[in-house]
Amino acid sequence: MAKTQITAEPGIPQIIMTCEFDAPRDLLYRAYTEPELLQQWLGPREYTMTVKENDVRDGGKWRFVHSDEGHEHGFHGVFHGDPSPDGTVRTFEYEGAPGHVSMETLTLTERGGRTLARTVSSFQSVEDRDAMIASGMERGVHDSDERMTELLARLQAG
Amino acid sequence: MAKTQITAEPGIPQIIMTCEFDAPRDLLYRAYTEPELLQQWLGPREYTMTVKENDVRDGGKWRFVHSDEGHEHGFHGVFHGDPSPDGTVRTFEYEGAPGHVSMETLTLTERGGRTLARTVSSFQSVEDRDAMIASGMERGVHDSDERMTELLARLQAG
Repeated sequence: MAKTQITAEPGIPQIIMTCEFDAPRDLLYRAYTEPELLQQWLGPREYTMTVKENDVRDGGKWRFVHSDEGHEHGFHGVFHGDPSPDGTVRTFEYEGAPGHVSMETLTLTERGGRTLARTVSSFQSVEDRDAMIASGMERGVHDSDERMTELLARLQAG
Repeated sequence: MAKTQITAEPGIPQIIMTCEFDAPRDLLYRAYTEPELLQQWLGPREYTMTVKENDVRDGGKWRFVHSDEGHEHGFHGVFHGDPSPDGTVRTFEYEGAPGHVSMETLTLTERGGRTLARTVSSFQSVEDRDAMIASGMERGVHDSDERMTELLARLQAG
């Protein structure tokens, strides 16, 4: 089972996440960009995730809503540059904390049929970074790891 | 004459710039947002700066071109959140280095008729931050300080 390593060094307003999956990178990139696949793995299990928009191109917008009974959490941002498996840059805002923006760079590197996914998130301040960690992000990430592993197995079996 | 303090700490992928101007913050905010004012102060003196677009609202785009004889340098990005003198967040890309995106937060604070402008730029990596500094940014910033001081004097005299 893949498990994301989360690194957040003192005084540096970034979170670096790395995870190796047993799948080729083209499949990983599809799972990160296609709405019907994203909805199957991103976020905690108890939430239903809906991709409202995911326009993966320079200047394109994305918006995802995670909902359970009675609660909705919206997230959105903008893609920057020319997104590809070598580098996809997007901004990230939680709609419950307007004005707090971070920027994510995802790179996918394949080695022998396995793929390393590396995400660097840069924040406006260490306080913003620490608020993201305090929000319970880690559990969501590890649910996502498990769900991504399951999805990749289904896709490769199919 | 106002002079920007530029802080770039080792290992931290940010540049922090602070400068105090002898003007009320509403005037500073106009100078930072109105195309006809921006064109009078932003960038090195020997370049003509043209504001192609500056849509100061959540999701709005901006694009500036600095040109001298035979050379053009384009910069663009997207505003995030609800821009105001209390906080204006935008992304920043130099078109000569695609894929390298930074994020800037400008806050303007008035004290006794003077205004402190503080800009935090967050980069994807320390290498990207160092490349920005190596590009000769500091001279452009200090030209801009002088030109802003002159513009504010003209606006307050008029």
